[in-house]
Amino acid sequence: MKIGIIGGGSIGLLLSRYFARTHEVTIYVRREAQKQQLNKQGLQLTNAAVSHPVRSLLINEVKDEDCFIFCVKQPHLEEVLAAVQTVDRQSAFIFLQNGMGHINLFEHIEQPIYVGVIEHGASRQSDHVVTHTGKGVIKLAAYGGVSPLHDLVEQLSLPDFPIEMHTDWQLLLSEKLVINAVINPLTALFGVPNRSIITNRSIHDLAKELCVEATQVLNLDFAEQWERVKKIAEVTGDNHSSMLTDINHQQQTENEAISGYLLSIQTGDIPYTTFVYRSMKALETKNKENI
Amino acid sequence: MKIGIIGGGSIGLLLSRYFARTHEVTIYVRREAQKQQLNKQGLQLTNAAVSHPVRSLLINEVKDEDCFIFCVKQPHLEEVLAAVQTVDRQSAFIFLQNGMGHINLFEHIEQPIYVGVIEHGASRQSDHVVTHTGKGVIKLAAYGGVSPLHDLVEQLSLPDFPIEMHTDWQLLLSEKLVINAVINPLTALFGVPNRSIITNRSIHDLAKELCVEATQVLNLDFAEQWERVKKIAEVTGDNHSSMLTDINHQQQTENEAISGYLLSIQTGDIPYTTFVYRSMKALETKNKENI
Repeated sequence: MKIGIIGGGSIGLLLSRYFARTHEVTIYVRREAQKQQLNKQGLQLTNAAVSHPVRSLLINEVKDEDCFIFCVKQPHLEEVLAAVQTVDRQSAFIFLQNGMGHINLFEHIEQPIYVGVIEHGASRQSDHVVTHTGKGVIKLAAYGGVSPLHDLVEQLSLPDFPIEMHTDWQLLLSEKLVINAVINPLTALFGVPNRSIITNRSIHDLAKELCVEATQVLNLDFAEQWERVKKIAEVTGDNHSSMLTDINHQQQTENEAISGYLLSIQTGDIPYTTFVYRSMKALETKNKENI
Repeated sequence: MKIGIIGGGSIGLLLSRYFARTHEVTIYVRREAQKQQLNKQGLQLTNAAVSHPVRSLLINEVKDEDCFIFCVKQPHLEEVLAAVQTVDRQSAFIFLQNGMGHINLFEHIEQPIYVGVIEHGASRQSDHVVTHTGKGVIKLAAYGGVSPLHDLVEQLSLPDFPIEMHTDWQLLLSEKLVINAVINPLTALFGVPNRSIITNRSIHDLAKELCVEATQVLNLDFAEQWERVKKIAEVTGDNHSSMLTDINHQQQTENEAISGYLLSIQTGDIPYTTFVYRSMKALETKNKENI
């Protein structure tokens, strides 16, 4: 299958490396320098002996593929969609963004759409080197429910890089959103690894309030989701959340797509979510001023 | 007048140094080492050419004084009160703690009580050296209203270290509590100087919510107090709040006396105050684990 991976960040590189073993992969990136590095050096997993040859193009050089996997963060999605939307209407579009803010962008897309969550850990070491920091799974669901998801999953899934099929895209994304809305802003605010959500009593109490609000807004069962949050905080205990990493590297966070999305669809007051939403904006502003 | 200053921190040293010029001052401290330093080296203001001789004793060596000024932080007040309460019932007791948590301790005190707020900036350089970082004023009010406040103020006030007389102790402490409940936890949480309360839009928005809650709980006019908060954040713009300093030095903060006091007397929900209260506890726990 011809696969276009959109985005040369940690997740884009990780997926490219695994899929390139059995598919024809093109990585679409924003910078000419990264494109050249990838084409010359190939793509390397930190623990692999050799680089794997790949093809890389700039996003505005997009060509037809059987399937596009969008691995850019939500704030950049609108821009890349504008460049990609001209391709074949039969190409599958797979979206792996956190949060649910990107759903609003689907309205004008004519290609079959799949949404998913990625539970792998990855860390980009350079423009062409990525570390697979945590083995997990990719969960996919068809958006709208009309497309032959089964075939796609069968072609993409690999024994050491499995893909799970889900039927309810909204539940899939909502459950991931709860995790992100609780763990990400608190770990970023207090500068702590994920485990602190359960080990630091005061952070635990704040996490619980955030979980109450998120499940209320998303119409999910609190008790069930709170158990999931605690389980994931435990399993990924040593990890730094993506939001903490972004704050530490003075990068823009996914605040708008996560807490911002909950605020945009809330009907009642959600003060704890409001607090962390503004806190992330406060830290982003502080970081900008320090640069 | 014979004045006993209780506590050898920044405020205790600052007051001792000024009052020692015209009064007979004894500084009561907890550590033998500080007592000896003060007795041997005298007390020095950073910018003064010479040390001023003072007398220092341990808190459990307390003797009669005309007036005791309590300069320990609220968490240590109960302990020192137990040691001092045996002195002459005519001695004036002056309390300069932040917050209003200490009011609960007044019930069993038989001496005339005065409460006050201190608007000087001070920073302790060593056991016997203090820097006067910001010139301000001390505001005093009689608690219960029966004592001759006027005489006391007349004796203590100095042209370059003025004392203001106030009639409503509750208003005096409440207004200071609002300032502390807004500025202290936010500056500590985000690691920013006081000015950020007005210059960082997101911190400003959170400050406003905290001010709404504090004025609601304390039955004060929001608009008036919010103007005061902004004014003080501006005037003390470069300063680091005491809570930020405590967090940075991994010391216990006055969280219980400030946000904790508001939570203890609230009747409705105050989620923003709850959030910062738990945040300070979270950071205190994080600091303890890192030691």
